[in-house]
Amino acid sequence: MFVLGIDPGLTRCGYGVVSRNGRRLRAEAAGVVRTSPEADVARRLAELQREVRALIEEYRPDEVAIERVLFQVNVRTAMQTGQASGVVMAEAAAAGCGVALYSPNEVKSAVAGWGGADKDQMEQMVRTQLGISTPLRPVDAADAVAVALCHLAVVPPGRRSNRGDPRAVAR
Amino acid sequence: MFVLGIDPGLTRCGYGVVSRNGRRLRAEAAGVVRTSPEADVARRLAELQREVRALIEEYRPDEVAIERVLFQVNVRTAMQTGQASGVVMAEAAAAGCGVALYSPNEVKSAVAGWGGADKDQMEQMVRTQLGISTPLRPVDAADAVAVALCHLAVVPPGRRSNRGDPRAVAR
Repeated sequence: MFVLGIDPGLTRCGYGVVSRNGRRLRAEAAGVVRTSPEADVARRLAELQREVRALIEEYRPDEVAIERVLFQVNVRTAMQTGQASGVVMAEAAAAGCGVALYSPNEVKSAVAGWGGADKDQMEQMVRTQLGISTPLRPVDAADAVAVALCHLAVVPPGRRSNRGDPRAVAR
Repeated sequence: MFVLGIDPGLTRCGYGVVSRNGRRLRAEAAGVVRTSPEADVARRLAELQREVRALIEEYRPDEVAIERVLFQVNVRTAMQTGQASGVVMAEAAAAGCGVALYSPNEVKSAVAGWGGADKDQMEQMVRTQLGISTPLRPVDAADAVAVALCHLAVVPPGRRSNRGDPRAVAR
């Protein structure tokens, strides 16, 4: 089973692909899609849409797990992050992937065991679960991998994968 | 010049296509894209994406004008509306259309002459400008036509149309 984790954002959108084979977890890919803060928002959203579509076509995840956008102090940033998450959700569902949303606290609880874990503890737990010895950077990529791990923690290991089914990526 | 106006929403997303030929304004189409509140949000966003893409392919607008999402009392509704507007913005930019955002007050000022106009006054002004004698319904469609008229009021009549240029709808 392949899960694409997403830490949504317009300037930086983290992604991480984690596979599970039996009980074995493996990080297949992780990175960040960046768009220029100087470009206009619609073009940046279109660029994010293209990049996410390419990721889904390349890794063909069964499911896409996205960190839920909460309202932060900066209303404008929250709205842009919401718009970015909307674009990712639409692309994932259009590609036939299941989509699940998790709050930051749910991700921390599932991966580190408690909702108050800080960035360093989270990154350490992610590396431990995946058996990675080198630091996961940038931090948005590590966050996205954590969202994928959170989803795998709540989905039973026996669930059938639809990977390889061409309908899964049909539009 | 063809402008697609959008009053974004997830349950009801109004649209209105207005053309301008010289000084003559004409309503080419107006309606509402609806998605079921019972379906999951990602699938609803994917459905909205498909419908907006079909509208852009059918009417090939030069520009897409979208009402800006403001934070309302209901935070969850505002976030869903923001996600819907993100999907529309990405589709419009991906299709090569210019994208402009207007606040509800800007739309009211441009169409009715003052920012405090109510729904009935707005609908009346929209019909007057377009020479339509029958009521414009549903109200989301009338709102979307008003957004398109607002955009046409701020764009000089001489601006060149890229309609008919196949690159305008290239993906």
